[in-house]
Amino acid sequence: MNRTKIKALLARTAPLEKVLIKGWVRTRRDTKEFSFLEINDGSCLASIQVIVDAGSPGSEHLPDLSTGAAVAVTGEMVPSPGKGQAFEIRSHALEFVGGSGGDAYPLQKKRHSDEFLRTIAHLRARTNKYGAIMRIRSRTSHLIHRFFEEEGFFLIHTPVITGSDCEGAGEMFRITTVKGTTPASEDFFGKETNLTVSGQLSAEMMALALGDVYTFGPTFRAENSHTSRHAAEFWMLEPEMAFCDLAGNMDVAEALIKYVVKGVLETCSEDITLFAKFVDKTLMATLTSLRDDTYERLPYKEAVEILQNAKKKFEYPVSFGIDLQSEHERYLAEEHFKKPVFVYNYPKGIKPFYMRVNDDNETVAAMDLLVPRIGELVGGSQREEREDVLRKRMADMNLPEEEYWWYLDSRRFGSVPHSGFGLGFERLLMLLTGITNIRDVIAFPRTPGSIDF
Amino acid sequence: MNRTKIKALLARTAPLEKVLIKGWVRTRRDTKEFSFLEINDGSCLASIQVIVDAGSPGSEHLPDLSTGAAVAVTGEMVPSPGKGQAFEIRSHALEFVGGSGGDAYPLQKKRHSDEFLRTIAHLRARTNKYGAIMRIRSRTSHLIHRFFEEEGFFLIHTPVITGSDCEGAGEMFRITTVKGTTPASEDFFGKETNLTVSGQLSAEMMALALGDVYTFGPTFRAENSHTSRHAAEFWMLEPEMAFCDLAGNMDVAEALIKYVVKGVLETCSEDITLFAKFVDKTLMATLTSLRDDTYERLPYKEAVEILQNAKKKFEYPVSFGIDLQSEHERYLAEEHFKKPVFVYNYPKGIKPFYMRVNDDNETVAAMDLLVPRIGELVGGSQREEREDVLRKRMADMNLPEEEYWWYLDSRRFGSVPHSGFGLGFERLLMLLTGITNIRDVIAFPRTPGSIDF
Repeated sequence: MNRTKIKALLARTAPLEKVLIKGWVRTRRDTKEFSFLEINDGSCLASIQVIVDAGSPGSEHLPDLSTGAAVAVTGEMVPSPGKGQAFEIRSHALEFVGGSGGDAYPLQKKRHSDEFLRTIAHLRARTNKYGAIMRIRSRTSHLIHRFFEEEGFFLIHTPVITGSDCEGAGEMFRITTVKGTTPASEDFFGKETNLTVSGQLSAEMMALALGDVYTFGPTFRAENSHTSRHAAEFWMLEPEMAFCDLAGNMDVAEALIKYVVKGVLETCSEDITLFAKFVDKTLMATLTSLRDDTYERLPYKEAVEILQNAKKKFEYPVSFGIDLQSEHERYLAEEHFKKPVFVYNYPKGIKPFYMRVNDDNETVAAMDLLVPRIGELVGGSQREEREDVLRKRMADMNLPEEEYWWYLDSRRFGSVPHSGFGLGFERLLMLLTGITNIRDVIAFPRTPGSIDF
Repeated sequence: MNRTKIKALLARTAPLEKVLIKGWVRTRRDTKEFSFLEINDGSCLASIQVIVDAGSPGSEHLPDLSTGAAVAVTGEMVPSPGKGQAFEIRSHALEFVGGSGGDAYPLQKKRHSDEFLRTIAHLRARTNKYGAIMRIRSRTSHLIHRFFEEEGFFLIHTPVITGSDCEGAGEMFRITTVKGTTPASEDFFGKETNLTVSGQLSAEMMALALGDVYTFGPTFRAENSHTSRHAAEFWMLEPEMAFCDLAGNMDVAEALIKYVVKGVLETCSEDITLFAKFVDKTLMATLTSLRDDTYERLPYKEAVEILQNAKKKFEYPVSFGIDLQSEHERYLAEEHFKKPVFVYNYPKGIKPFYMRVNDDNETVAAMDLLVPRIGELVGGSQREEREDVLRKRMADMNLPEEEYWWYLDSRRFGSVPHSGFGLGFERLLMLLTGITNIRDVIAFPRTPGSIDF
């Protein structure tokens, strides 16, 4: 007979005469007459209780069924007399699939620190917390794809290997197939190549052909940063919309986040509740605000005035022209507005060459979305579509035109106003779960000096 | 007023009093009294016809509206008296958005060679053919995600940067942040790191926690290969299922491909028709077979016998123990069975260490799916779940156990039978469109010596 997943069983409201489950033992408790097994198969947070009568077929394996062992159980699903579950399974036949080494198994039933679990990333998804984050990560990815498909966007896979060394977003990893001091001209691609820090410039080319597009893939930073917010490899979502201005850009970002939060609350409630209970007591309030509140929108200039007038003492002083620090961003979202805030029209001097220069010639049509606890979740802009203005910006910033001939082409041929943004996927997951270390929302995180798996 | 996309307009069955479209001019034809513009916005293959009366608002821009120029048109959608379209738009106001440099625009209305279009990959998605392939690529990605979500799989993002140098699937790119002869111990991760050739081993860890998972992301090969079937960077889909044997593995692969082909035929029919008409006359027959036929399943041994008895003369002679060549694979699928064929139970000697050894101790529980025109589309196996057999295989193949301590852990703790496969996403796209060069199904392809964008 076919196996049924525990998620499907627990969704039932009626008993079942015969059922086959397969999974891993979370706990075992023995009495003289029978044993209780809690079986989890990863399909959901909850386990199902199995009763194995002493002497029933396969019960001779019970001593081997310590935490982590794999089993298959055929039996009847019946109403449970015990607390905490509507149904339980009475085993008719127990099959021992794989042992777990008894005391050698690193995930004994007790609380383990996040630090310890990082050293066994290959096993930690078997715990409640990390199983839940992996399920939420998957569901959030699916919601993102669904949102964009419903809105008529096309998914573009922009390349990970780039010949550009100045995409502008950070330090890059170099890629090579040669050793030592062999010149780049003899390397695989005939020139120096790097791991991308952003798919934006490629995505722009596709938006100017297909209309609305997005990329969603791995991006890289070679910064030797040991904070809880930075990883060398992370996933970034980057939509790019033709015929879209800065206000439209903010509209898309706000609609996306509301859609995702609503979807996660509706379909991952069991997993989310775990985080609301044990990780961040304010989580439900944050998520409700993200879903229901209208996000504030204010110019950078006004944000600076609010920060200057704040009673709070900041580590970094505030004046027009500075890049906002995390403490400033969080103050605006958490304390002043108490909801998500778009800050837009940033000073030209702190922003990249591709952002559209405003008529004041002092600011660019950039926007950041600031959210409680995380700070910047989204960063985007209307792009400079005017060829002459773009060339001037590039010259001012000493960017070599010959490296960007194809990018400039897009402003020579059928250039249109367009906009887009980047959203750090792991930051979104931290927002959704209350987890504070980026290493804990990635299956196998990559940080300086750390690549064990 | 809000812009309407052309795809939505063309889906209408009734006229519209007022509409705003934005897009790019494909062609312009002038008479004394009015001009015809074909406008495309990338949302679909078809363009919409716009009639601009001489002297109407914005008509002074008409001379600038050569192929590739960007416009916005407000007007009325009315039944078209002309052939080839049900509706057309009579312009009330024409806005000139961006010029296209007249004759300088590389995509004049004529047929361009694929070779030429590869040199302008940043513009080629503006042509019918490359726009269509990009839309099909997007839709196929979405269908893959939908299939696995409906089937209860979790999406896992396995890392691109790996510390392993022997994942077994091919030559690797090295990643570094240091120059010249600096030792790897002083590099970013403290050891030599590479770009992944497969997410399988990581995905196995997740399947053994969550049940059914899949990865879908970029993978890399540093082979200096100049064929039409190989790229240095490509996307790979890798599902991995706990409690699943080789037959179940083939079931998943067959169900997936049928789901995707059915979905593409239903929702991309306009774009697919373009390829069936101009690229591959046999395309519809191939796709119908992929969707409707029951795929053949036969052991490698029988496949070898069929090939040995074939009247066809092969370049590579066939005997038990050889790796099947593309000519053999295509013969089986195209000529002998005339439908997709799973070949399974391959000789142990030509397959990687992680494949499960069969009771004959001569073959492993591997399977390849062979399809017409492409040859191998899917390669998978049941994995070796028995710790002692796995260790012996690794020793026989001189693989260092200390590099795989975490992989071996999964066989020590709650090991279960499990299976999975890899599907080259670009090969699937070539199958779906009849395109024969991998460079033409990737937005910005990466091949040896070629990284212009």
